Amino acid sequence: MRSGPPRLGGRENWCLRFPTLTYGNTDPKDGMPTRGGYPSEYVLPEKFTYHLPEGLDPAGVAPLMCAGITTYVPLKRWGAGPGRRVGIVGMGGLGHLALKIAHHLGAEVVQFTRTAGKADEARALGADEVVLSTDEKQMAGQRGRFDLILDTVGAAHSLEPYLSALAMDGTLCVVGVPPEDFTVSPFSLIQGAKTLAGAGSGGTVETREMLDFCAEHGIVADVEIMRPDEVNVALDRLARNDVRYRFVLDMTTGDGGGADETAK
Amino acid sequence: MRSGPPRLGGRENWCLRFPTLTYGNTDPKDGMPTRGGYPSEYVLPEKFTYHLPEGLDPAGVAPLMCAGITTYVPLKRWGAGPGRRVGIVGMGGLGHLALKIAHHLGAEVVQFTRTAGKADEARALGADEVVLSTDEKQMAGQRGRFDLILDTVGAAHSLEPYLSALAMDGTLCVVGVPPEDFTVSPFSLIQGAKTLAGAGSGGTVETREMLDFCAEHGIVADVEIMRPDEVNVALDRLARNDVRYRFVLDMTTGDGGGADETAK
Repeated sequence: MRSGPPRLGGRENWCLRFPTLTYGNTDPKDGMPTRGGYPSEYVLPEKFTYHLPEGLDPAGVAPLMCAGITTYVPLKRWGAGPGRRVGIVGMGGLGHLALKIAHHLGAEVVQFTRTAGKADEARALGADEVVLSTDEKQMAGQRGRFDLILDTVGAAHSLEPYLSALAMDGTLCVVGVPPEDFTVSPFSLIQGAKTLAGAGSGGTVETREMLDFCAEHGIVADVEIMRPDEVNVALDRLARNDVRYRFVLDMTTGDGGGADETAK
Repeated sequence: MRSGPPRLGGRENWCLRFPTLTYGNTDPKDGMPTRGGYPSEYVLPEKFTYHLPEGLDPAGVAPLMCAGITTYVPLKRWGAGPGRRVGIVGMGGLGHLALKIAHHLGAEVVQFTRTAGKADEARALGADEVVLSTDEKQMAGQRGRFDLILDTVGAAHSLEPYLSALAMDGTLCVVGVPPEDFTVSPFSLIQGAKTLAGAGSGGTVETREMLDFCAEHGIVADVEIMRPDEVNVALDRLARNDVRYRFVLDMTTGDGGGADETAK
């Protein structure tokens, strides 16, 4: 029989004793607020550092450390690969990386989007098919088709159309965090022995594996680079979904804030 | 790429083309209503018949074909066995069989019940531990403990305490069908990469396997046998949860109805 804390096995992101988010939390060691990607300097244990993969653009790699790992882990866990049909719901920062990764894992990938104008781009990024999720007829045709659907949508929405789209034993994995609770019919899970799962971020072992995979396949995020003093423009545009697909602040330009600011 | 209807692989219970419940549905072959366990004679394809396991009481075997298979399949699918801690929520027809099966699969089994008076019986049936789910203090101690929880409760209830009780990667599988939709917080799934699954009944392959397993371990349901003309008493007592743990109608006694009735 097992006792004591769970064995994390390199999956430090699920630490229950000292869970610390990189932004907006309090560091348990020094009691200081965590400031995510905003500082220009960091002090951290070597264990949590990674080599920048050779040949990949640093700005495009940055979002791999959040959106990339968050989508890579469930795609691997639930078996995205040759012979499997995978749906990606939402084509934003998380979704466009999920699409690229699932495609390079060898799965047949169907991109769901509310934005008809993103269809061509989805195909260019690796989608075998694009489904307009606002089109009832297209959605009705999805019943029972998918081994795995990765739902990256951060806005409130119904899961029922995607549970219905799963094949027997299929998994709907949510990685977006809508502001409302999900409502799920018991029968939608029971009929076909379906699964609703969650995932988010990854630990050091999975992150190294993800970086190796992305380096091998030349996968980076599509990014728009901004100076630190443009951060409020970036936040306003994010609120309007006006980004394809991630903003990256280049801390080597302009006023980096953080340690630099303190030094002034 | 795959096409056509899903391969059922002996899991006929998930047939999407001609789904037919054994009670209260319409038989697609002859258009007659299906009457579940009430007729005294059946005509059915040989494929859907099973040998009564040697040495097991027929009345105790009957509920294995519904409550037994419904709990056996997810216990096997989600790895109940040595070194795994499994929770069973609810100790009724489904729950008491889930408890016996999980115990004989070699798992450490914790029975959750609202009824303090069932604790001794749960231990006698194989529970390593019994948790009174109405006791907040006991429930608070369950956080992060379980690899798998099988929820057999048919009344409306919150899933949150059981999602919280799961360890990293843990699965909460519902087999009861409450009258209301489930409400699930996205974070309850995402934090710890947890899974909410559904299961119900099984196909011919799984049913044969389940019967072999129960024969090997001497597992039958605890039943109270009644005559067919006592069915309304049984239904009234069921409505009051007054059964340990399944009623079985002995169609060889009294007026069997069904085919006999027609013959009169």
